Amino acid sequence: MLVGIVGLGLIGGSMGLALQNTKLIKKIVGFDNNVSHCEEALELNLVHEIVNFDDIKKCDVIFLAIPVDAIIETMRNLTDISSETTVIDLGSTKEQIVAKTPQSLKKQFIPAHPMTGTEKFGPSAAFATLYNSGVVVICKNKEIEDIHLTRAIQIFSHIGMKIFFMDPKEHDKHASYISHMPHALSYALANSVMRQENPKSILILAGGGFRDMSRVAKSSPVMWSNIFKQNRENFLEAVKIFQIELEKCRVMVENEQWEQLEEWMKNATTLHKIL
Amino acid sequence: MLVGIVGLGLIGGSMGLALQNTKLIKKIVGFDNNVSHCEEALELNLVHEIVNFDDIKKCDVIFLAIPVDAIIETMRNLTDISSETTVIDLGSTKEQIVAKTPQSLKKQFIPAHPMTGTEKFGPSAAFATLYNSGVVVICKNKEIEDIHLTRAIQIFSHIGMKIFFMDPKEHDKHASYISHMPHALSYALANSVMRQENPKSILILAGGGFRDMSRVAKSSPVMWSNIFKQNRENFLEAVKIFQIELEKCRVMVENEQWEQLEEWMKNATTLHKIL
Repeated sequence: MLVGIVGLGLIGGSMGLALQNTKLIKKIVGFDNNVSHCEEALELNLVHEIVNFDDIKKCDVIFLAIPVDAIIETMRNLTDISSETTVIDLGSTKEQIVAKTPQSLKKQFIPAHPMTGTEKFGPSAAFATLYNSGVVVICKNKEIEDIHLTRAIQIFSHIGMKIFFMDPKEHDKHASYISHMPHALSYALANSVMRQENPKSILILAGGGFRDMSRVAKSSPVMWSNIFKQNRENFLEAVKIFQIELEKCRVMVENEQWEQLEEWMKNATTLHKIL
Repeated sequence: MLVGIVGLGLIGGSMGLALQNTKLIKKIVGFDNNVSHCEEALELNLVHEIVNFDDIKKCDVIFLAIPVDAIIETMRNLTDISSETTVIDLGSTKEQIVAKTPQSLKKQFIPAHPMTGTEKFGPSAAFATLYNSGVVVICKNKEIEDIHLTRAIQIFSHIGMKIFFMDPKEHDKHASYISHMPHALSYALANSVMRQENPKSILILAGGGFRDMSRVAKSSPVMWSNIFKQNRENFLEAVKIFQIELEKCRVMVENEQWEQLEEWMKNATTLHKIL
């Protein structure tokens, strides 16, 4: 099986490395609009070869590991591929990507979202075990041909992923709570400190809690503003729900309602019974 | 040197373990209002012996590792100790504790805050390396006698801590940004998900980012509502600053101002150049 990966950053590069550790794949080729990414990916052995976009089209499986708007754009340039080629996108949003899949690709296009990643990006961020033990959401639908779905399931399971099937709408709503809104919190937390008079003297005191909460604020602004854009309505809803919760806390502290505050905190701790 | 630890949870218990690994201390005794904590602490060898509060008063050094309101209360019961005993508090707030230190204790009382901890609590949460490589803030002032300050510095450095001196007001302001407000965000994030119709189906998708951001929402509600109470004004200020940042983000997404959003995110990423 010949695999082509479009986008050789953290997601695409790690896929290249993970696939090399399976017995499924004969050869992995890569493409990236950014020439220095291509050179770096080759140096780091993320893929076996760098090819042009026309050669990507000849692969048995094509992974799209690029920002979510670019996925929609790139699909339009894949309408002339063989019906035997499986196209798998790895983007963080699903509803718009599914809605905008060209009709001629629908039988062979697998909308997928591996719920894994780090705050780092670019080829140097890639590592072989990123997907291992992670969860991947596949937005299965009746239009997808069984041969393509089977192939995707096989690949994801061989790189160690736990597969969940979900409707694109449901995925985007859930992802807004579990991933997209929390990224906004982390960026806002980082900005809250950076806009203080002397952030350095504050950051000297940073312990594990602050480091953990601000970690994802290192993530790629281009990629994440793109995700907020595609999942705008769910994102706005999740942020509003969060704002209501935080304001409850602020008001309880302002009004010195300590017992109620403790109850509110106790309710929060129940999360970890099911997480 | 005989050390007494009041409060045998994560902070006090870890102090007991860390001190046993230094050559400074002959014997460590412990006291906790909670009898089962005492039994557990002894079983886990966090201290050499459990004593009553009157015996704690006879120690050379007394650590107060209890919620911040209890620190203020307990200091009132320490006014009859020898002037040669050093009292060190390990609470997360400093301004009120310093302001409410009984006059007779001021020469021998060291207000300290180790900027380290985990979301776990109770004796079983204690571990020997909690303090190793962490930062401790000491609120030095002219009233403290040199012998007591020297002793505290010696102890903290021997358990591997990096010492910063800071004014209590400055400490509480900084701590509100770096620790207290972020805890409120984590609790609010956890509540945002828990109040959804089916939190389990959302949490199935949780990756590392969400786990990191919701981790401190496991922390003790009693301890943390107490901290918010003692650092109320700084906390409210830090929450307000955060709310402004998050609302900026929400409005940019609502108004589809993607370039401005990217700039806002880019500003956030600069945090990690100095963290």
